[in-house]
Amino acid sequence: MDKYAEQTRQEFEGWEEFYAKPVDEKLDFFKSDGRLFDIIYAQQFDREYLDYFCNLADMIRVMAKTKMGQKKLRHLLPHKRAMLYFVQPSTRTFLSFQNACYILGLSVSEIRGTTTSSEVKGESPEDTIRTFASYVNLIISRHPEAGFAEKMAWVLNQTERPVPVLNGGSGPDQHPTQALLDIYTLEREFSSVGGLDGKKIAMVGDLKRGRTVRSLSYLMKNYKDVTLYFVSPEIFKMKDDIKNFLDKHRIPFYETDDFEGIMPAVDAIYMTRIQNEYSEDPSSEAETHPQFHFKTKHLSMIHPHCVILHPLPRRYEIEVAVDNDPRAAYWRQERCGMWIRAALIAHIFKVGQEIFDEFS
Amino acid sequence: MDKYAEQTRQEFEGWEEFYAKPVDEKLDFFKSDGRLFDIIYAQQFDREYLDYFCNLADMIRVMAKTKMGQKKLRHLLPHKRAMLYFVQPSTRTFLSFQNACYILGLSVSEIRGTTTSSEVKGESPEDTIRTFASYVNLIISRHPEAGFAEKMAWVLNQTERPVPVLNGGSGPDQHPTQALLDIYTLEREFSSVGGLDGKKIAMVGDLKRGRTVRSLSYLMKNYKDVTLYFVSPEIFKMKDDIKNFLDKHRIPFYETDDFEGIMPAVDAIYMTRIQNEYSEDPSSEAETHPQFHFKTKHLSMIHPHCVILHPLPRRYEIEVAVDNDPRAAYWRQERCGMWIRAALIAHIFKVGQEIFDEFS
Amino acid sequence: MDKYAEQTRQEFEGWEEFYAKPVDEKLDFFKSDGRLFDIIYAQQFDREYLDYFCNLADMIRVMAKTKMGQKKLRHLLPHKRAMLYFVQPSTRTFLSFQNACYILGLSVSEIRGTTTSSEVKGESPEDTIRTFASYVNLIISRHPEAGFAEKMAWVLNQTERPVPVLNGGSGPDQHPTQALLDIYTLEREFSSVGGLDGKKIAMVGDLKRGRTVRSLSYLMKNYKDVTLYFVSPEIFKMKDDIKNFLDKHRIPFYETDDFEGIMPAVDAIYMTRIQNEYSEDPSSEAETHPQFHFKTKHLSMIHPHCVILHPLPRRYEIEVAVDNDPRAAYWRQERCGMWIRAALIAHIFKVGQEIFDEFS
Repeated sequence: MDKYAEQTRQEFEGWEEFYAKPVDEKLDFFKSDGRLFDIIYAQQFDREYLDYFCNLADMIRVMAKTKMGQKKLRHLLPHKRAMLYFVQPSTRTFLSFQNACYILGLSVSEIRGTTTSSEVKGESPEDTIRTFASYVNLIISRHPEAGFAEKMAWVLNQTERPVPVLNGGSGPDQHPTQALLDIYTLEREFSSVGGLDGKKIAMVGDLKRGRTVRSLSYLMKNYKDVTLYFVSPEIFKMKDDIKNFLDKHRIPFYETDDFEGIMPAVDAIYMTRIQNEYSEDPSSEAETHPQFHFKTKHLSMIHPHCVILHPLPRRYEIEVAVDNDPRAAYWRQERCGMWIRAALIAHIFKVGQEIFDEFS
Repeated sequence: MDKYAEQTRQEFEGWEEFYAKPVDEKLDFFKSDGRLFDIIYAQQFDREYLDYFCNLADMIRVMAKTKMGQKKLRHLLPHKRAMLYFVQPSTRTFLSFQNACYILGLSVSEIRGTTTSSEVKGESPEDTIRTFASYVNLIISRHPEAGFAEKMAWVLNQTERPVPVLNGGSGPDQHPTQALLDIYTLEREFSSVGGLDGKKIAMVGDLKRGRTVRSLSYLMKNYKDVTLYFVSPEIFKMKDDIKNFLDKHRIPFYETDDFEGIMPAVDAIYMTRIQNEYSEDPSSEAETHPQFHFKTKHLSMIHPHCVILHPLPRRYEIEVAVDNDPRAAYWRQERCGMWIRAALIAHIFKVGQEIFDEFS
Repeated sequence: MDKYAEQTRQEFEGWEEFYAKPVDEKLDFFKSDGRLFDIIYAQQFDREYLDYFCNLADMIRVMAKTKMGQKKLRHLLPHKRAMLYFVQPSTRTFLSFQNACYILGLSVSEIRGTTTSSEVKGESPEDTIRTFASYVNLIISRHPEAGFAEKMAWVLNQTERPVPVLNGGSGPDQHPTQALLDIYTLEREFSSVGGLDGKKIAMVGDLKRGRTVRSLSYLMKNYKDVTLYFVSPEIFKMKDDIKNFLDKHRIPFYETDDFEGIMPAVDAIYMTRIQNEYSEDPSSEAETHPQFHFKTKHLSMIHPHCVILHPLPRRYEIEVAVDNDPRAAYWRQERCGMWIRAALIAHIFKVGQEIFDEFS
């Protein structure tokens, strides 16, 4: 940290203190008029919000099937301007958010890459953020640093003209829209079998470092009678913090390294990337623990309604030929991300009700 | 090719076989409901399509002259989203496509540059393409690899949710919209002298490697009584494949290195860039065969209706002062590219008839 | 300059001659039908234009407060397409212009970075510019080279299809929209105390090289009874050209290095960045002349209506805690830039009157 950044921190005193608070204690700070304003943590979504966003995303998706519906959607927010500030590259998340904006008619400015010209000129991150807020109505950010999106929201909410911040991933742990899209995909795929409540879900791969499976596990407290199966090699086992959390909320979970053994038992298989930490040849399939891969031969071993998910990009974890099976839901899951992000943006700008009214 | 790509190829078996087929045998694959869906090869345009697109481009051009017409155009496709995937940089083609999209109201996402973040993470090109298709309704690609756009179309057409692929140039040979814009420019410039049928056209410069002159030669089979003049140094002569094609279709052509000699005889002069392959000083004019350049002094030697074309960018091939002559059509040609691309997009999304109806 | 560029210059003869003319003699060249067409120099704005643009920007700002107003604004120019050609990076100016375009409904193409693919292929800057003009209706450029925007305008105004050029900064001296936004901010901040006429304005920091304070000084000739205070270290004093200009127009000015001494006397303080030219540690505050910084302790020393401006980005010149004082106007100033740029674009495309009519 250089001298200038240090000075700034002193001025904006209180950030370190705020950041150190338990998540649950600061969720109100990201609300405005009693509703979600900034989207920073997956913990902001309780069951009511989860159901609401899944419903809203579904309505947007259905409206987008017709030309008339698409035009109505585009007329909801053409007067709003979003900023995509992606310091950490992520083509998938970027395109998903950008097209979610387009669906609702927003204009989009983008910064992709590691440095802005202002940073080069020595501007503080806080000033850069205030600058963005001068020009747009919504900031969607992705950043390698933990707490970055939260700090943006914290800075802006203290100014005369706060604009909402949508966390598109910051640091190793926070990626609330990914967690939300996973929930939406599961609810949608289970729509004919009673939804997510009561289901058995296997999470497979690198559970120790996997951001998506960790967030998803947290959100399970909102659903009834869910059972989790953690399937991984010994070195990539789910960490204790999550397991303690599940114990506290009385969510049963089982740990195993026998992937094929649990296949027939589960309603959903959430695959993730896996790779040896000190792999000498990262392009080698052998280094990616093939016994935790899903192959075509496994299709006959799983339930007729079992859903296969993956946050993508994949490498070897799922054989390409599996894509052709209707239970392979990961391409639909990707698209669900666009719909759920559109739902979030619609809610932030208070046009969710207008969408519901289309169906009344 | 790394191991992973190899695996993928095996899964998507059939691509190598498909790609190896003669172009004419696979054109149906790029159709949907009996109409053009993907635009991959110039060979997809028969005379009927060529005339149709020239007419449609003309109507779009005329509509765009008034504010009312522009607004009507923008209301045709505001519900569609395009993706410009330009792995190989090309400012001109990029801007031409992007603004063609804007004219019809489409939203545009862009990736410009050689790598996406997903490629860095080891995603296969097929998966990257499917990801794009998850978010947008049209993919316009430019890629240095021959067959790239075709492969995109081939992959997507086998999925549940294919989106059309528009080839903005892939590899040394395929650039169908350039060929189409050249035809449109010639038809438009010849509109008062009976169109392209019966005309004498000189192609000048590096005919051996020139993608544009090669494609244009192929398309000549659709026109009546056209005569071609191939004007080049010995080392850059048109290759036999084209000459055999012309013989087969009974299109007369002449080869010469006497540029000034044929000037008075022709109705159009299509200039291209030319440069010694092993040039030590590529910025040197001397290395660019000055006897195949068009100079102001030549303006008095050509027909009053002779049209001068160039795909641009130019270097020394045409003296800048030639620009002021009304027969210099290359700047209009550039703009014709935007109109014809808009026409293609309008056709793909089935709003061509709406445009024609404006004039009925 | 390579041989090709030299040739081009000869063809476009007259540029060097034109460029060498005094600014006042060439202002008519940037008009069309008696109104501003290209915006190249701050000198194009006389008092009538300054008042007009401040009023227009104010109306756009007020309209943008309501959803209805925003929608009306967006319907003014949805049929126009702008090109942001930013060879020199500048996040702030880029975003300001882009969102000004969005406010009025324009589509935007962008090139950010030092090279286009055409430049790589050896295209002349003149040809590159003509290419942009083929596709869009407005070019907004930023370039490190002095005279670049002017040359673009000069080239295009000689073609069949000129499009307006908006100078977003070229070289060390020309940045007319920055000067205009500074005027607008001052007029707006002084709106309850009679406007800019009669005010005392301090300019602080590196006045020798500071583009903004130099341009602002020039524009002072349009206002009555303004007094300037130049506050800087000896080595960064305002240059003689400006001082001679002020003498000629009988605008009183005082030079001092006693910042605190003049604080109580002035109505506005325009802060700028300052740094030792041969600084060994550019991130060091000590190298930035702390006696010319504005600190929270100074807030008690200035007038209750005194306005603090800064073109941003800042480094150490203004303590962050000053931001919370209502007299700190630099964040509003940033936003004023967006409104005034929207006003310029509205004027260029002749929809200013439509905006005024909303208020009649």
